[in-house]
Amino acid sequence: MHTKPKVLVNGIGTIGKRVAHAIKLQDDIELVGIADKFPTATLKTVLEPIGPLYGTYLYGSDQEGYENLKKAGMWVNGTIEDLLRNGAIDVIIDCTPEGIGAINKKNIYEKYGVKVIFQGGEKADVAEVTFNSVYNYEEAIDKRYVRVPSCNTTSLIRTLSAIERKVGIDYVFVALARRAVDPHEYKKGPINAVEFDRHVPSHHSIDVKTVMKNLNIFSLAVKVPSTLAHTHMIDVVVERETSYDEVLKAFEEQTRVIFLDANEYPATSVIIEKFRDYCRSRYDMYEVVVLRDLVNVEKNRIRYVQVVHQEAIVVPENIDAIRAITGIEKDKWKSIKKTNESLGILK
Amino acid sequence: MHTKPKVLVNGIGTIGKRVAHAIKLQDDIELVGIADKFPTATLKTVLEPIGPLYGTYLYGSDQEGYENLKKAGMWVNGTIEDLLRNGAIDVIIDCTPEGIGAINKKNIYEKYGVKVIFQGGEKADVAEVTFNSVYNYEEAIDKRYVRVPSCNTTSLIRTLSAIERKVGIDYVFVALARRAVDPHEYKKGPINAVEFDRHVPSHHSIDVKTVMKNLNIFSLAVKVPSTLAHTHMIDVVVERETSYDEVLKAFEEQTRVIFLDANEYPATSVIIEKFRDYCRSRYDMYEVVVLRDLVNVEKNRIRYVQVVHQEAIVVPENIDAIRAITGIEKDKWKSIKKTNESLGILK
Amino acid sequence: MHTKPKVLVNGIGTIGKRVAHAIKLQDDIELVGIADKFPTATLKTVLEPIGPLYGTYLYGSDQEGYENLKKAGMWVNGTIEDLLRNGAIDVIIDCTPEGIGAINKKNIYEKYGVKVIFQGGEKADVAEVTFNSVYNYEEAIDKRYVRVPSCNTTSLIRTLSAIERKVGIDYVFVALARRAVDPHEYKKGPINAVEFDRHVPSHHSIDVKTVMKNLNIFSLAVKVPSTLAHTHMIDVVVERETSYDEVLKAFEEQTRVIFLDANEYPATSVIIEKFRDYCRSRYDMYEVVVLRDLVNVEKNRIRYVQVVHQEAIVVPENIDAIRAITGIEKDKWKSIKKTNESLGILK
Amino acid sequence: MHTKPKVLVNGIGTIGKRVAHAIKLQDDIELVGIADKFPTATLKTVLEPIGPLYGTYLYGSDQEGYENLKKAGMWVNGTIEDLLRNGAIDVIIDCTPEGIGAINKKNIYEKYGVKVIFQGGEKADVAEVTFNSVYNYEEAIDKRYVRVPSCNTTSLIRTLSAIERKVGIDYVFVALARRAVDPHEYKKGPINAVEFDRHVPSHHSIDVKTVMKNLNIFSLAVKVPSTLAHTHMIDVVVERETSYDEVLKAFEEQTRVIFLDANEYPATSVIIEKFRDYCRSRYDMYEVVVLRDLVNVEKNRIRYVQVVHQEAIVVPENIDAIRAITGIEKDKWKSIKKTNESLGILK
Repeated sequence: MHTKPKVLVNGIGTIGKRVAHAIKLQDDIELVGIADKFPTATLKTVLEPIGPLYGTYLYGSDQEGYENLKKAGMWVNGTIEDLLRNGAIDVIIDCTPEGIGAINKKNIYEKYGVKVIFQGGEKADVAEVTFNSVYNYEEAIDKRYVRVPSCNTTSLIRTLSAIERKVGIDYVFVALARRAVDPHEYKKGPINAVEFDRHVPSHHSIDVKTVMKNLNIFSLAVKVPSTLAHTHMIDVVVERETSYDEVLKAFEEQTRVIFLDANEYPATSVIIEKFRDYCRSRYDMYEVVVLRDLVNVEKNRIRYVQVVHQEAIVVPENIDAIRAITGIEKDKWKSIKKTNESLGILK
Repeated sequence: MHTKPKVLVNGIGTIGKRVAHAIKLQDDIELVGIADKFPTATLKTVLEPIGPLYGTYLYGSDQEGYENLKKAGMWVNGTIEDLLRNGAIDVIIDCTPEGIGAINKKNIYEKYGVKVIFQGGEKADVAEVTFNSVYNYEEAIDKRYVRVPSCNTTSLIRTLSAIERKVGIDYVFVALARRAVDPHEYKKGPINAVEFDRHVPSHHSIDVKTVMKNLNIFSLAVKVPSTLAHTHMIDVVVERETSYDEVLKAFEEQTRVIFLDANEYPATSVIIEKFRDYCRSRYDMYEVVVLRDLVNVEKNRIRYVQVVHQEAIVVPENIDAIRAITGIEKDKWKSIKKTNESLGILK
Repeated sequence: MHTKPKVLVNGIGTIGKRVAHAIKLQDDIELVGIADKFPTATLKTVLEPIGPLYGTYLYGSDQEGYENLKKAGMWVNGTIEDLLRNGAIDVIIDCTPEGIGAINKKNIYEKYGVKVIFQGGEKADVAEVTFNSVYNYEEAIDKRYVRVPSCNTTSLIRTLSAIERKVGIDYVFVALARRAVDPHEYKKGPINAVEFDRHVPSHHSIDVKTVMKNLNIFSLAVKVPSTLAHTHMIDVVVERETSYDEVLKAFEEQTRVIFLDANEYPATSVIIEKFRDYCRSRYDMYEVVVLRDLVNVEKNRIRYVQVVHQEAIVVPENIDAIRAITGIEKDKWKSIKKTNESLGILK
Repeated sequence: MHTKPKVLVNGIGTIGKRVAHAIKLQDDIELVGIADKFPTATLKTVLEPIGPLYGTYLYGSDQEGYENLKKAGMWVNGTIEDLLRNGAIDVIIDCTPEGIGAINKKNIYEKYGVKVIFQGGEKADVAEVTFNSVYNYEEAIDKRYVRVPSCNTTSLIRTLSAIERKVGIDYVFVALARRAVDPHEYKKGPINAVEFDRHVPSHHSIDVKTVMKNLNIFSLAVKVPSTLAHTHMIDVVVERETSYDEVLKAFEEQTRVIFLDANEYPATSVIIEKFRDYCRSRYDMYEVVVLRDLVNVEKNRIRYVQVVHQEAIVVPENIDAIRAITGIEKDKWKSIKKTNESLGILK
């Protein structure tokens, strides 16, 4: 019988604060601490008596982080390396800003036996496997370094792998209307413009291929002045003629993919309000929403529109990744079920 | 000993859904039902098994509403009048759209003995008392019709009455940068403009005077392209010289007024994120936020900036108003304390 | 030798005010008047001594319009029908709101011999030909009713017909991130949401086919909270392998299509600022902008991103349509050249 | 008789490009060149054959600027210092980014006899006089260093000095809802937030006092997610009872202050559209707009709302400042009249 793996989350930002909270809801994983470099408003809030991480041990991401937190009057218990030296951590979820994970790996993680789960801000080669719960859970089992790709990538893999399994895919074109920033942000724009992604293809299709290695996919992207969710407009050529019903069945059978009708939910704001109405913590929407009445199927072409809550969608994949990387659960469906139930995921 | 008053919420929109949820959290008040006219996405969501009002009895606001809900396949138990005829409701919280409350009063409520709490969208003369928990709770006791004014009015009364009590007020000028629409909205703008309130003074100062009857106050307002919160910039002439410390003490002693520093919370989005981080349901911020480091006091002048979450701030006042109007609690401080604890209000 | 055709513009809104101004810049077309139904701020402004239509005769769109304008103290010279009865108009450019053009046709235009150019808000069957200057100018010659399609359609035809001519097209997928409203608008949103076009395909691809009748094209669209320009992300399968250079040449050779680099113009706001910097009237951008460095060509696939100024792009097509419908210029290239020079179109 | 003063504009950004263009429209001032440090898109555009500064001599702001422009393939004629060494410049309008003007003064301008006009981004002590055309033109005559304050300051001085002249001012409170960024901007936000100005009072009232030295004024400010114009809500205590008519007369008599009715122009976007409809270059609105129907006068209190086009409003003051600083026109009214006519200013 396994003892619970001891997990630390490094970096309490948009993803880190959610993953740490989600770990606390698991009965087979232990949150031994959180770490950060700066005493941000968010860090202080989640540790307040009414915050979701109240009572969690706090560490400095490094010595400088330790000093920063200490200076701010926070109760800080040492650094990550203090814990690592004592073998007190089995897995680190690195949720530090883009590119810092790779530096942490080199400077800290590699010196110890700890396993690490990186996020999509890191390049794929930071890890042995880029991970998606339904697609390649098995590949991550007992690995040392695993990477959970970004929100856009994770959501595309969910719906595209459902299609691929059912009818095979020849070609995918994705146009992304990305939310420009997260809701708390106030410094970055645009206020009244659409910004072009200057990479062609945009990194999204490239990133999907780090998981679905043989997929023929191309993406273009723009940033739009909204904070709530990404919207994907997708055109897929499949290997044989299919039908609306068959495609809907493919999505229906896929976990963490749900349907809403654009007729009733005509904008991203109305979708997000549904999750506020559910009283989900932080209105987190872990599920990809496929707009059922916008799915179009003609012979071997499928077009659909999906909506992705950029802040939350990778949280369940991170939890599953802990089970895979530690080997405490080798059956992906058992892990997915456990994660889904703990987070109230609809299906 | 009182039996619990039986309360129905009519109109499950932005305010109604919150008040109904808040009533469910009270141990001395019973939610006998909710009513609406249309099968909106919100209505369906809050009644889903994972919604906060699951299991609540649903009624049509009127016969037409009953038909609408029925046609949508919802489980609807009759109309409000069916309940009123049976004397099954003590208090209705009318949260219907602006102006409908007065029509409901004339067409329905007046025919029965029911007590009613209206919202700020109705004109003041719909009720005997316009209500604020700390300012005039006593006046509402055992009344039949009470009105809870709008979010802007409620929040201004909270901070201004704190100042008035401490040092007296000669004159108040308020400039409001109002959020244009609520977060779920997608049809209304402006997208890239500031819209002028064409009433001079704007209705806000007039509405404050329905409660603080002798206050010399004037307001101007604009709508800005944001969905999160109202921001008030306030200039007050008080009756005698005062000091920064004395003014802060006045705010400190007032319930449902909290401090944050603009230095750490430099925008409405960062303030709202704090309440997402707390995992407050729907990130509801019932408290007015006074930006502590922006309070300025010179002789007999006080300037300050406050932030108001338009969706949530009147919820505690509605709960207190139920206790007042029914007379189940004649001590305002006891009601305020009960409400605050049930909703997790910070102070 | 032709005398100048006498043209009246009915409806001085976003399109009408521009077309009327553009007509004044032609030496072979006469603006005999403008007509409207309401004394809007725009109508009054363009007729002020410093406005671009100062001195133009004003008419009521109908009797009610006449009364409205008169009551507002404007100098109004009768109704459109007064002019039509006297044979004083050869061509009406109908720029009235969506759907009104068809009503005008039935109630007014059909009773007289007048020729009419409708806009894209009308259904295609309002006219004999849906018009694009380079694609089917000849078809419109001497017709009675012609329709200039919308900004999105016009711009897609410009670039797609350039590709078609060069290498043939098998299939086109277009994803549109539409500006939600025009810059002057303040009532409509969304402020912070992406709204889905609930038609699948969206009307844009259907409308392109009213001109390019055999094109295999499919479009999906969303509205984004910006007022400046539409952005199209396009994936084309062409009939044979092609190259980046060949595709650029196709665009280069097409009139009213220009290149900018996303590297220097990374957002719609920077593109629009260029036309403010040129001091173009109302910063009108009549040209479609193809982002040169975002064009991608692989074998028989072309992907590109284009930007469309929704307020201005159909103006040159309207001017050309006058020449075609009246037959005063049967050579499309001569008309295009004349129009381009009069409006300062870059190429 | 004076020869024309030779003027160079250093920094071709939002203000610089407008001032350079405006100088070209004066018959008593000569634009000898423009200078910049980087080959921005704007710089290239205004120098294109169809740009408003085509043919103007271009210089590097310094040696590094010269190299940058040269490397970009631009036709650059040397540096500012090359010109200064030859005595070829009488006045430099420094429109470089905030704080750079002071550095330029120390490093370059002080070494030569050149006169300099700085902008509001510089601290007041960079110059001998902070300048406003109607308020203190005379003070700037024959000075060496003059500063034109920011758009907010300039516009406040225009309307407040009109009131002061008529009835005297005891106290002013200004609440500013500032446009967050200029229209071309795409990197900076906020997208969906109101940002607080963390200075109390905000710098605006302090800056007004650099011109109206004895004015008792206090300001609070927020940034809102719009790009078009600043909106000021103002409460003034005057020295004696006054009337609506008298206040309107005061504004009416003031140059560069115009009236519009909020009833017809209910939002900043509709006001800006008026100036697009006029076909003003870049829709520049040099005039402060006072919303006539929002002016409120009660005894000795005046409240009003004004709208300020942040990009353009200081342009006429810069032109007047050239005449003052060089002494070519000692009568301010003659300079104002000349500037107004050249720019098409309404009154």
